[in-house]
Amino acid sequence: MKKPLSFLFAAMAVALSVPAAAQFAKPEDAIKYRKASFTVMAAHFGRVGAMANGRAPYDAKAAADNAEIAVAMSKLPWAAFGEGTDKGETRAKPEIWKEQAKYKEGADKMQAEMVKLAAAAKTGNLDNLKAAFGPAAGTCKACHDAYRKE
Amino acid sequence: MKKPLSFLFAAMAVALSVPAAAQFAKPEDAIKYRKASFTVMAAHFGRVGAMANGRAPYDAKAAADNAEIAVAMSKLPWAAFGEGTDKGETRAKPEIWKEQAKYKEGADKMQAEMVKLAAAAKTGNLDNLKAAFGPAAGTCKACHDAYRKE
Repeated sequence: MKKPLSFLFAAMAVALSVPAAAQFAKPEDAIKYRKASFTVMAAHFGRVGAMANGRAPYDAKAAADNAEIAVAMSKLPWAAFGEGTDKGETRAKPEIWKEQAKYKEGADKMQAEMVKLAAAAKTGNLDNLKAAFGPAAGTCKACHDAYRKE
Repeated sequence: MKKPLSFLFAAMAVALSVPAAAQFAKPEDAIKYRKASFTVMAAHFGRVGAMANGRAPYDAKAAADNAEIAVAMSKLPWAAFGEGTDKGETRAKPEIWKEQAKYKEGADKMQAEMVKLAAAAKTGNLDNLKAAFGPAAGTCKACHDAYRKE
């Protein structure tokens, strides 16, 4: 049963990640990397959200720059969910590896919403930003609820 | 003495970071963010290095993709070295805040070498990649030696 799973994840990594040959020497390196990429994404996404939600003054350029970084970061974590990375210093639930197609669907949806958010940010219109932020945040929450331990 | 330092760092953040309005709610958020951005950069830079040093087979597209991500990441950490972020879960030496001009110079040099590395990677020529990797790695090491605790 190990080969097919490994194959599925290799295919998933190729499909999801920018660098096709994602390599981690140890599972803990992969875990550290994916957490780091989520951390950086969350920081920039959060700044866009603060503007969308009126907690920070709207700055069109800052919104566009931060959303763009969030898009770049949104591509990275997925290659680091390979086999053997379900244990250790991680809040990732086993369901990620049991429902790979569903997990990939959620990851794809998040990336698509980030692209829409960045496009909205680039219009320089706060209403557009507000409209795009909710759905993007919803894709974060959906996966956290289903696939992240408290 | 607190105002000038704070002002210097605000100016530094504006000069160094992509998003001008870098905001962290707490110093520990800034520390976590800068460590995360270095982690992501190191993973991608390391993949380029593995090819440059013959530890991994040369893949021109992977080298270019990874170097490009390293460039994007190289812009991020500096805004997170603000006042009050010298304490806590960090290996950053106090010298960073004592020698700000020198630290900024090192950070700028690293970013410039990353851009050169990405340009070399885009040529698709392994010898170019090898030639650019050493100087880039040197800028990492120089700052680690001077500004990072063991």
